[in-house]
Amino acid sequence: MRTQHDEATQGKATTSANSGDQSRPQHQIKYTSDAYPNLKRNPNFKRVDEEDIKFFKPLLGEAIIDGISHDVSSDLQPYNTDWMKKYRGHTRLVLKPDNVTQVSEILKYCNSKKLAVVPQGGNTGLVGGSVPVYDEIVINLARMNKIRSFDDVSGVLVADAGVVLQQADEHVASHKHIFPLDLGAKGSCQIGGNVATNAGGLRLLRYGSMHGNILGLEVVLPDGTVLDDLGTLRKNNTGYDLKQLFIGAEGTIGIITGVSILCNQRPKAVNVAYFGLESYEKVQEAYKEAKGQLSEILSAFELMDGASQWLYRRAAGKEPLLGGDYPFYCLVETSGSNSEHDTEKLDKFLEYVMGKEIVCDGIVAQDESQSQAIWGYREGVSEASQHWGGVYKYDLSIPLAKLYDIVAETRQRFNDNGLMGKGKPVVDVIGYGHMGDSNLHLNVCTRGYSKNVEEVLEPWVYEWVSKHNGSISAEHGLGLAKKPYIRYSRSETMMKLMKQLKDLYDPNGIMNPYKYI
Amino acid sequence: MRTQHDEATQGKATTSANSGDQSRPQHQIKYTSDAYPNLKRNPNFKRVDEEDIKFFKPLLGEAIIDGISHDVSSDLQPYNTDWMKKYRGHTRLVLKPDNVTQVSEILKYCNSKKLAVVPQGGNTGLVGGSVPVYDEIVINLARMNKIRSFDDVSGVLVADAGVVLQQADEHVASHKHIFPLDLGAKGSCQIGGNVATNAGGLRLLRYGSMHGNILGLEVVLPDGTVLDDLGTLRKNNTGYDLKQLFIGAEGTIGIITGVSILCNQRPKAVNVAYFGLESYEKVQEAYKEAKGQLSEILSAFELMDGASQWLYRRAAGKEPLLGGDYPFYCLVETSGSNSEHDTEKLDKFLEYVMGKEIVCDGIVAQDESQSQAIWGYREGVSEASQHWGGVYKYDLSIPLAKLYDIVAETRQRFNDNGLMGKGKPVVDVIGYGHMGDSNLHLNVCTRGYSKNVEEVLEPWVYEWVSKHNGSISAEHGLGLAKKPYIRYSRSETMMKLMKQLKDLYDPNGIMNPYKYI
Repeated sequence: MRTQHDEATQGKATTSANSGDQSRPQHQIKYTSDAYPNLKRNPNFKRVDEEDIKFFKPLLGEAIIDGISHDVSSDLQPYNTDWMKKYRGHTRLVLKPDNVTQVSEILKYCNSKKLAVVPQGGNTGLVGGSVPVYDEIVINLARMNKIRSFDDVSGVLVADAGVVLQQADEHVASHKHIFPLDLGAKGSCQIGGNVATNAGGLRLLRYGSMHGNILGLEVVLPDGTVLDDLGTLRKNNTGYDLKQLFIGAEGTIGIITGVSILCNQRPKAVNVAYFGLESYEKVQEAYKEAKGQLSEILSAFELMDGASQWLYRRAAGKEPLLGGDYPFYCLVETSGSNSEHDTEKLDKFLEYVMGKEIVCDGIVAQDESQSQAIWGYREGVSEASQHWGGVYKYDLSIPLAKLYDIVAETRQRFNDNGLMGKGKPVVDVIGYGHMGDSNLHLNVCTRGYSKNVEEVLEPWVYEWVSKHNGSISAEHGLGLAKKPYIRYSRSETMMKLMKQLKDLYDPNGIMNPYKYI
Repeated sequence: MRTQHDEATQGKATTSANSGDQSRPQHQIKYTSDAYPNLKRNPNFKRVDEEDIKFFKPLLGEAIIDGISHDVSSDLQPYNTDWMKKYRGHTRLVLKPDNVTQVSEILKYCNSKKLAVVPQGGNTGLVGGSVPVYDEIVINLARMNKIRSFDDVSGVLVADAGVVLQQADEHVASHKHIFPLDLGAKGSCQIGGNVATNAGGLRLLRYGSMHGNILGLEVVLPDGTVLDDLGTLRKNNTGYDLKQLFIGAEGTIGIITGVSILCNQRPKAVNVAYFGLESYEKVQEAYKEAKGQLSEILSAFELMDGASQWLYRRAAGKEPLLGGDYPFYCLVETSGSNSEHDTEKLDKFLEYVMGKEIVCDGIVAQDESQSQAIWGYREGVSEASQHWGGVYKYDLSIPLAKLYDIVAETRQRFNDNGLMGKGKPVVDVIGYGHMGDSNLHLNVCTRGYSKNVEEVLEPWVYEWVSKHNGSISAEHGLGLAKKPYIRYSRSETMMKLMKQLKDLYDPNGIMNPYKYI
């Protein structure tokens, strides 16, 4: 298998309108409260004191980092900052429960005292959702890391929320199954966090979303109630499917403590091809043909524009994979149970698309190391985009027909504004992403932070996405970073209904405050 | 393709504890209010009068059946009774809106006046959920039957809720796609009803559930608010995924008026095999092998016990498909994009399971008519179960390892009680169903209604299912029929949280009252 470090690496040293600080050395992390001066601590929240510690200590024993009684700020640091080093909170208390009863006791207490909390999994999110802003208590799930059961007939895994994604996948792999989610941060992220953020990743095209694969959840509500819906059944039509609400709720209405998820058979054969195309119209044709001809074995259809490939080759010092230069490239992956059959299907597909001149040129990996090398031309783009100093990154869902238009229009805007080219702030605008999921990564590669560049981009990008019925956050969620822009993807009515739900479950607003909706 | 008339036919002339009337001629349909004497009309609901008609007439024109001003009881009859002829309501008003604005106006008015309503799609449900009990107004969606759009690159269909399932499938079939749901009632049921009941059906094993395939919904809430979430994106992480709540809510918190759904490529090749096995352990082994070897092309794995096949052959006058008699039979279907590859995989699988003596004997259909004939041995069981006069039917989800135990135990109970055999009320107990979905149909074939038989079965069946973490309704929903038994599948906490949600969206309780939770 290829090395997995897809878009989850994109947050590293990126810049955006509301952080705007990629030139700052990473070891001096600005407090979020300073970076977002418009935010104010909610005065209704109690501040943690010695009395609270007296409650938590007997409950959790050593599984607590207590910055109230002692100065342990360096111990607290990893829980206060996100892995991108873009956000930094002021928490003085970290709790590490190892079972659902403890989580329930903690939330019940915090709710009654109006102590704000932040649920924290692997802390690998890209939008600042898993670290405190002020002095919210961090409830870290890392110690809830047990596989509860796996049934290799049904393929259903039941596990604690704190199990690391890679461990979950390795566990089911030993039973010849595959976890239906895969993403760059798999070595650190936790499955509870994956569910809470409705993570998308690399396998969505094939295995579908969390909403289909999650069969059950155990969730602790803010008042301590345990929603015990950890079933393992594929079919259960007995009442409202409440667990669905917590998928993608980013810890704002409850803490997920257990997960039941359906895993498929692990594919025995994986094939990878890479080809060049003349236009986005041809890319769409190729995708349609891939869906039709590769059908049940198609596991990835990735798009990279010419600029992104030029950039990657230059930044990583690589040679072109094909003879000529093309405005578009695609990567196709198949996964199936029979290598011979899959190869035959893929060859036939390539023969067809080349015969019909849908594709100009293409290659097929002959072994795993070639597959990995080809994947490098897709996965390396994210890091390469930072090659010149700064990058503005957007993770957008856009209906396929219009998917690439925003890249061309963004480029046009910078040309019109005289901001792009030699000696100008913008080096290039690139587009790439999960074509099969209608998910585009729009990157504006710059020589550094620039107010002018930012003003060309925002709110124009969000307005464009909104006008074309897209989403301003395809797979990264809202967190703190995208909270201000949700209205570009959701109507006032939807916002009102969402807030109504938040108030229902979390009337004191203690769950992951200042973020999300 | 085979004729589709799966479990959706099973309701015909069935009996159950709370109807208990299969000996009554079908043309005399008992009022539900008489059959369920414990139910009482909610006195808070207003009765429809001339004033109300004055509001609805200008709004809907001719699209109204008004039993207040005129005697039109025969016109009202089809809306008052379900297609199984088991339930009969007293409505005197049917409204047939043809757009979302009309639905919104209707609900807003009804909510303000406390007029109870029943949303009605194709009226093909099996649990009495889509007809009134008393004088609830029927809001029938049949006129909202337009395909709004289909994108043959992304495979996303957007359509009115009242589009008939078969029409939806035919529409996407003309674009080489397949609707991810298929079930017996496809010629009558509507996609809005399918979503509202979270229908399972024949394609769930392959394409997954509604929760994964539905990309967007348009829903009118009881107060007339239109939840406009009819997106077409596979990824959109911007806030709570509210639409999920309406999938399987059976019209109790809103009326679905529009559906956006992801459709896959239509398979080009379909193969069917049928084989005999010695034990349920062997069935499980065969299923595991089928998953492993057929993997991405496996589209059905159906289980039929020996008794069910004996019964079918006797009732339908058919010969055995295999040379010997076996305690268990399975039907395996593959669907893929390459007939040759699929045949090779299936042959290899059969060779393996027969070589390893997992399977005793088997046949593979050589053409479509043989495929259909084999499917008959699975699909014909439901009708055959009524051959002796009566049948008690249960649609259960049970974890695979224990799936068949309930059949053997039920049989044992009747033997112990002396109720089964020649001249006794029970002819036989049979088990069959969607093995791939952990979904068992337990049928007790009787010579007629019997209080003694009923007492052996209930609540024992529900208790058994509850004890083994199953579901008392796998795919048929709750409606009126299963409302009393939900507590066998859901905890008090879950019930409380469900009721909280119902109260949030429908504080006056006007939506499909007397049913569901």
